[in-house]
Amino acid sequence: MSSHQEQLQALMAEQKALIERPNLVDKDWHNGIYDRYVYPVLTDEHVPLFWRYDFSEERNPDFLERMGIGCTLNPGAIKFNGRYYMMVRTEGYDRKSFFALASSENGIDNFRFHDYPIVMPETDLRDTNVYDMRITAHEDGYMYGLFCTERKDQNDPDLSAADAQCGIARSKDLINWERLPDLKTPSPQQRNVVLHPEFVNGEYAFYTRPQDGFISAGSGGGIGWGTCKDITKPELNNETIVDERAYHTIKEVKNGAGAVPIKTDKGWLHIAHGVRGCAAGLRYVLYAFVCDLDDPSKVIASPAGHFLAPLGLERLGDVSNVVFCNGAIADDDGKVFIYYASSDTRCHVATSTIDKLLDYCFNTPSDPLYSADCVQQRHDLIKANLDIIGDNQELRY
Amino acid sequence: MSSHQEQLQALMAEQKALIERPNLVDKDWHNGIYDRYVYPVLTDEHVPLFWRYDFSEERNPDFLERMGIGCTLNPGAIKFNGRYYMMVRTEGYDRKSFFALASSENGIDNFRFHDYPIVMPETDLRDTNVYDMRITAHEDGYMYGLFCTERKDQNDPDLSAADAQCGIARSKDLINWERLPDLKTPSPQQRNVVLHPEFVNGEYAFYTRPQDGFISAGSGGGIGWGTCKDITKPELNNETIVDERAYHTIKEVKNGAGAVPIKTDKGWLHIAHGVRGCAAGLRYVLYAFVCDLDDPSKVIASPAGHFLAPLGLERLGDVSNVVFCNGAIADDDGKVFIYYASSDTRCHVATSTIDKLLDYCFNTPSDPLYSADCVQQRHDLIKANLDIIGDNQELRY
Repeated sequence: MSSHQEQLQALMAEQKALIERPNLVDKDWHNGIYDRYVYPVLTDEHVPLFWRYDFSEERNPDFLERMGIGCTLNPGAIKFNGRYYMMVRTEGYDRKSFFALASSENGIDNFRFHDYPIVMPETDLRDTNVYDMRITAHEDGYMYGLFCTERKDQNDPDLSAADAQCGIARSKDLINWERLPDLKTPSPQQRNVVLHPEFVNGEYAFYTRPQDGFISAGSGGGIGWGTCKDITKPELNNETIVDERAYHTIKEVKNGAGAVPIKTDKGWLHIAHGVRGCAAGLRYVLYAFVCDLDDPSKVIASPAGHFLAPLGLERLGDVSNVVFCNGAIADDDGKVFIYYASSDTRCHVATSTIDKLLDYCFNTPSDPLYSADCVQQRHDLIKANLDIIGDNQELRY
Repeated sequence: MSSHQEQLQALMAEQKALIERPNLVDKDWHNGIYDRYVYPVLTDEHVPLFWRYDFSEERNPDFLERMGIGCTLNPGAIKFNGRYYMMVRTEGYDRKSFFALASSENGIDNFRFHDYPIVMPETDLRDTNVYDMRITAHEDGYMYGLFCTERKDQNDPDLSAADAQCGIARSKDLINWERLPDLKTPSPQQRNVVLHPEFVNGEYAFYTRPQDGFISAGSGGGIGWGTCKDITKPELNNETIVDERAYHTIKEVKNGAGAVPIKTDKGWLHIAHGVRGCAAGLRYVLYAFVCDLDDPSKVIASPAGHFLAPLGLERLGDVSNVVFCNGAIADDDGKVFIYYASSDTRCHVATSTIDKLLDYCFNTPSDPLYSADCVQQRHDLIKANLDIIGDNQELRY
């Protein structure tokens, strides 16, 4: 066997073992709300070798990698024909990201990429970078992918100045996409836009993330909300704020909608992200809230603090100290698969149930915003527990 | 034995084992282009104990460390009298760095520091900090060390405002250095300057890294180029741009020349660094390019994206998410030793060959700058590979 063939076969065997490795619940983690797993569900090492190496022995005798993949992150997620799909933000060594489908039978392991990355049609304005797709199965019958499209800001001479907008495409099979015009909103830039799965007063409804400085003074950004009649001419004339940023919270600097909201008996369940600044840069965590069934722009449950934060090696990556979620799947039996990326580098899953998540959202105290009030909240919990513990020595170790 | 002696002997045994530990190729890494190694080649723990502890039992009965070393990073590199030398940026706990020589017989392990750090003569303007030496064996017979000298910017009241310039010194033995005047250029500040090893049109030629805002409008910084007749009066009257920064690439924010270019049959091979911003600060990666043999200011091969990025624990250090290279050694048999530092903390080596590096540079597609074009590049690769794979089930796992 040639050296070329030997290297290919060794790498294939290694990758097959990686892909087929069963994923396990992480027994070191407990909060009762969700399970974490020992392994990421998808990494750069899951990307097919034939996406990266030239298999031709003639053209590539030393079997060099020709087009590396740096990371696989921020997956949109949807269940389709009984399979669990992630629409993965896949980033080449060149820093350009694109969408790639990976699917699995059980949602927690054995995710495999499909043969080709998605070919996303462009608008008249070319996309420099596309990422973070949210996939909404809308009641109109289409699956919509809303994602960020980023281009050089032509109005700013700074070479790094970027313009972020919400790109929209729709599909019936997740492979072939029809591109619609970018969303127009009152804000100059948009990111983290999520299409609500149902019509609201007969219109398409969007969770937005307006940029600071273009919302009416004092609102301070946050997760916005707007509707439009015709999604083929997507324009929001108004943006109202659903969930505000707040001083000294996990969403002090930024926040944005994440997974497409999950419909439950008690409301629309959201997994969103909040951002704060620190000496090491921005820290991204996930948080949860519930919106009213009849008015999805109204928050009715808002547990304090983060729902999920980077843990252990999740803390490390191309952009450290980040977790991000833009996809979750709720099964008919109530099981929920929350897909999230850590440090802009790899994809993970956490599993829970609708019941547990609602219990978490409605029974976790909301943020009282002052340290002394936080102490009071905790005193109340402790006092109630000590009353239960009483003289029971088994509960005092 | 006294406690003092016991502690010294235990530390010495530990350090001897560390220094003499054979380095191994990292079998978990494969890209065919270069090998990584399991261990760093140099860390703060390699620094001689007699540089840090007072060995006198009388003055230091409890054997305290008197002058710690925080990190060993950004090594210049050169082969001299058959040995592999690193000129290491060595940083005390006081945050001042200086140069120290370490050498090895095989270039991958057993690096030992020489007895004393380098005494670098000063100019009339004292150096607050010196770092990142590139060592060029010039055809004029000298070895030149070009490095950054940093001083307080006296024109800026901000206490942290620094002025970075290119210091120049030359030597015949790597130990004794003759300091020349700092390089003058059209740019107000300089860093990452590399002296080309050959005369170009009879002049000394420099790769520079002009600061933004002082180059003619629209150039956008990048790696510059200039020449001068007399290196004892080093002044560049012109700086032209060899390799530009570009939007949404790995060199969006900054880039700079790294190792002294390696002469090959097909051109001058460069290992440089590119910097982009992200939520966790600046991310430094290495990239490669080739310049024309006759005109070393002209890029003739420019593979897309990063050549080497921080991996695993390399991601962590005093300045996380950084790799940096300012030294590489090409042996006569074509083997190449690329020395790089991770996260401003420790030194590593990656090994390759001239042939593989040229194959990488000339046969890796260049950056098409738009996501859809990147997808098209990858589709072309995948299509060609799937044609080769055909019905061969062994290649479809």
